[in-house]
Amino acid sequence: MKISARNQFKGVVCGVIVGVVNVEVQIRLKGGEIIVASITKESADVLAIKEEMEVIALVKAPQIIIATDLGGYRLSARNQLQGTVTKVTRGVINSEIDISLNGGDLVAATVTNDSVDSLDLNEGQSATAIFKAGSVILAVN
Amino acid sequence: MKISARNQFKGVVCGVIVGVVNVEVQIRLKGGEIIVASITKESADVLAIKEEMEVIALVKAPQIIIATDLGGYRLSARNQLQGTVTKVTRGVINSEIDISLNGGDLVAATVTNDSVDSLDLNEGQSATAIFKAGSVILAVN
Amino acid sequence: MKISARNQFKGVVCGVIVGVVNVEVQIRLKGGEIIVASITKESADVLAIKEEMEVIALVKAPQIIIATDLGGYRLSARNQLQGTVTKVTRGVINSEIDISLNGGDLVAATVTNDSVDSLDLNEGQSATAIFKAGSVILAVN
Repeated sequence: MKISARNQFKGVVCGVIVGVVNVEVQIRLKGGEIIVASITKESADVLAIKEEMEVIALVKAPQIIIATDLGGYRLSARNQLQGTVTKVTRGVINSEIDISLNGGDLVAATVTNDSVDSLDLNEGQSATAIFKAGSVILAVN
Repeated sequence: MKISARNQFKGVVCGVIVGVVNVEVQIRLKGGEIIVASITKESADVLAIKEEMEVIALVKAPQIIIATDLGGYRLSARNQLQGTVTKVTRGVINSEIDISLNGGDLVAATVTNDSVDSLDLNEGQSATAIFKAGSVILAVN
Repeated sequence: MKISARNQFKGVVCGVIVGVVNVEVQIRLKGGEIIVASITKESADVLAIKEEMEVIALVKAPQIIIATDLGGYRLSARNQLQGTVTKVTRGVINSEIDISLNGGDLVAATVTNDSVDSLDLNEGQSATAIFKAGSVILAVN
C-alpha cells in the first residue's frame, strides 16, 4: 500500500461498539498497545469490521499531539501511546518528531516549532503521542 | 466567502442519515463524485440540511491523505477521490500536492516530504485524495 | 501540563448531550465564548464529564480554519470564534496566524501561504477562527 499517512499501525481488532452513525473499533498492536478508531457505520459494514480481523490503523502526522508531562491532567483523547523521542527535524514553522513506542511501533508527529521549544523536545526524551479516535482511518486487505 | 480552507467543493445534498449526536450528509459534486460529511445534529438542524440543497464542502489540506496504490487494501475513509497530480510544491518538512479530480474539481493536500519521496509523487501521476467524513465542514448560503 | 497542542482554552462545562458512541460537550470560556467538543462516550464516562466541571479544551493549530468574510454563508462547524489577527509568521508552505479573541483567549492557526495571500491576512484584521467539535480534546484535572 503506497499511501501518504505517516503512521500505519498494524493490529488486530479486539473490540467493536456500534452506534447509529458511528462505530468505535479497538485495535491491539503487536506491542500490546490498544488504538481506538471511530469510523462511520457504513464503512464498518462495507469493510465487514469484526473481532480478530487484521487491520492497519492510519493516522496523519499533523493529527498527533505530543505531551511530555500531563501534570495530573487526564485527556479525552482515546489514543495515548508512550514512547521515546528518536528524532527532531526542524522546519521554518513546523517540526517533525519521531517517537519510538515502548511496544516497538514508530509514530511521526508534526508540531509547531513553538511547541518543540516550550516542551524542550529532544532525542531520548520520554513522550506520549496523543490522537483522537476520529483521526484514525482503517485499512483492511 | 473568504475562508482559509484550501478545498471548497460545491455540490448538492443527495443523502442524510440522522444519528443521536451526529448526522452523515452525502453531497454530489458536479463531476458526479460523492463527498460524505459527518456533522453534529445541532449543526444539521441549524443549517436545515436536506436533500437537493446546495452546499460547499470545506476540507483543510492537512486533513487529506494521498494514495498512489492501495495494493488491495480497502479503507474506512468515506471520501476517496480519483485524480491526477498537477503540482508538487516542496517546503522544508511538508509539501503541498495539487490533484485534479476526474470530475473537474481540484484538491490541495499537505503531506510530509518523506511521503512525497516514498510515493514518488510527481506531476501527471494518478493519485487518490482520501479524507474522513469527520474532516468536512459544510457551508450553506 | 506540557503538551504540544497550541490552543488550550480553559473553561467550564455548560452542557452535555449523550449519544450511543459520541458525547457532545459545551464549554464556556472566561470571555463568554462557547466551545463545543465531540468526544467518545467512553472518554466522557472515564473523565466523569459533567456540568460545572473545569476543563481545558485542546485544539491543534492545523485543525483551525480562518475566515475573514463568510459572505452570507453559514457553516456546520460548531466552533466559530471572533477575534483580531495579532501575528502572521510565514514559512515556505504554511504560515502560523495568531488571533486574539474578543473574550481574551488566543488562537494559533496554521494555514497555507496561498490562503494568507488570498485572504490578505495581516495584523489588525478581523478574523474568525473555525474548528469542528471533533477536533477538540478535553483535559481534566
